[in-house]
Amino acid sequence: MTDATDLLKPGERLDYLARENLSIIQNPDYFAFSVDAILLAHFAKVPRRQTARILDLCSGTGVIPFLLSAKTAGHIDAIELQEALVDMAQRSCQLNNLTDRLTFRQGDVKTMEAARPLYDVVTCNPPYFSVTNKQTQHHLTSHAIARHEVYLTLEQWVAQAKRQLRTRGKLFCVYRPDRLDDLMETLLGAGFSVHRLQFAYGKADQVAKVVLVEAIYAGGRQGLKVEPPIVMYGPDQQYTPEMKAIYYGD
Amino acid sequence: MTDATDLLKPGERLDYLARENLSIIQNPDYFAFSVDAILLAHFAKVPRRQTARILDLCSGTGVIPFLLSAKTAGHIDAIELQEALVDMAQRSCQLNNLTDRLTFRQGDVKTMEAARPLYDVVTCNPPYFSVTNKQTQHHLTSHAIARHEVYLTLEQWVAQAKRQLRTRGKLFCVYRPDRLDDLMETLLGAGFSVHRLQFAYGKADQVAKVVLVEAIYAGGRQGLKVEPPIVMYGPDQQYTPEMKAIYYGD
Repeated sequence: MTDATDLLKPGERLDYLARENLSIIQNPDYFAFSVDAILLAHFAKVPRRQTARILDLCSGTGVIPFLLSAKTAGHIDAIELQEALVDMAQRSCQLNNLTDRLTFRQGDVKTMEAARPLYDVVTCNPPYFSVTNKQTQHHLTSHAIARHEVYLTLEQWVAQAKRQLRTRGKLFCVYRPDRLDDLMETLLGAGFSVHRLQFAYGKADQVAKVVLVEAIYAGGRQGLKVEPPIVMYGPDQQYTPEMKAIYYGD
Repeated sequence: MTDATDLLKPGERLDYLARENLSIIQNPDYFAFSVDAILLAHFAKVPRRQTARILDLCSGTGVIPFLLSAKTAGHIDAIELQEALVDMAQRSCQLNNLTDRLTFRQGDVKTMEAARPLYDVVTCNPPYFSVTNKQTQHHLTSHAIARHEVYLTLEQWVAQAKRQLRTRGKLFCVYRPDRLDDLMETLLGAGFSVHRLQFAYGKADQVAKVVLVEAIYAGGRQGLKVEPPIVMYGPDQQYTPEMKAIYYGD
């Protein structure tokens, strides 16, 4: 591993992913990865083979490619709009000696060229919040761009995922349950089937905070599976054993 | 309460609903209510007022109207295709002295006239299984009619629910998670919004067995809420405290 002190810029910190033994550069002034990304990388099933081709949309500081690199020997491309986040991801890539398997680039998901050959898997932790109510989105910080549909709508990233995937290729995404109807409608309308859902709850008696989705492009409907619930916190306010397993391994 | 011995026919039994102190006539030769109906009646929110108008489609032996009668002072109409089940429901109605608040009639959901005035709430525990594969549906027993889309498809009962409901009226239904994509697509296509979902799991580490759905007709989308998971059985194979509360009260 490259010495981190050579790669860190002022204000940056390293976040350590224990299970995968990876360090990721973050900066509190910019959007940092959240538990949503951790859950998505855990939920996603990727081919292990070296020829697997995976694309991560809205990659941020690259947490999903880094976590997936432990699950596949394939190549992972990642695209992110915000230059500062791409810069951090590229340096994290050097730091973890993954430059031969991970490629981070700055770009707009809306205007990407279709890849040749097409991808086997697309992952996405997209902006969640619609911007119909301007008051909820007070200024265009890095966080606002990552979390609100300012530059990228649901329809736009689903259309791009469809464009990049081969027939029967898989899309894995994480979303807010309160827009699950919009998400499913958009996916079904774009020719995806919804193959697997999993809900994560803050506590066992609370409404779901997160939904994880596996959709298959042009594969026909074969029955949807709703995986066991993930409960994040126990009554003692600590992570449940299942969440510890996700973070630290079984 | 009328003496049950006067009302029971040969081969029939009484099932007791402890929480509501109601007895329901069942016959093992015909379709009997399952935990799905109990979960749906518990999930459904109905107006308490005496003027509330509620319709139960595919009512079977009437378990949903009986359970809802404890949650509302309104009138509940119920329709069921199979004459033998309607006959049992009508006698259960006498038995529980509910003839002034519950009306059971034999009829085909496909061809019902629209009610005037329209209903506030429609409930439905519909046939779940599509009949594309004839081998899964070996003979047309009462059970097969109730469980398979032999006489009534998803599109047909959703269309009828839409026809019977007032603007912003609510549909509550129970369904198999493996067809949640079909269900949501059909509901959204018919002008419903999906307002609330709840998943029930056999055990905490198993895929979901049941999904409960609240949909609002012509109300616009206001954000979907996924209620806390219901886990039916504990590691000891016994009902969990939450399932005991549903059956026996808190």
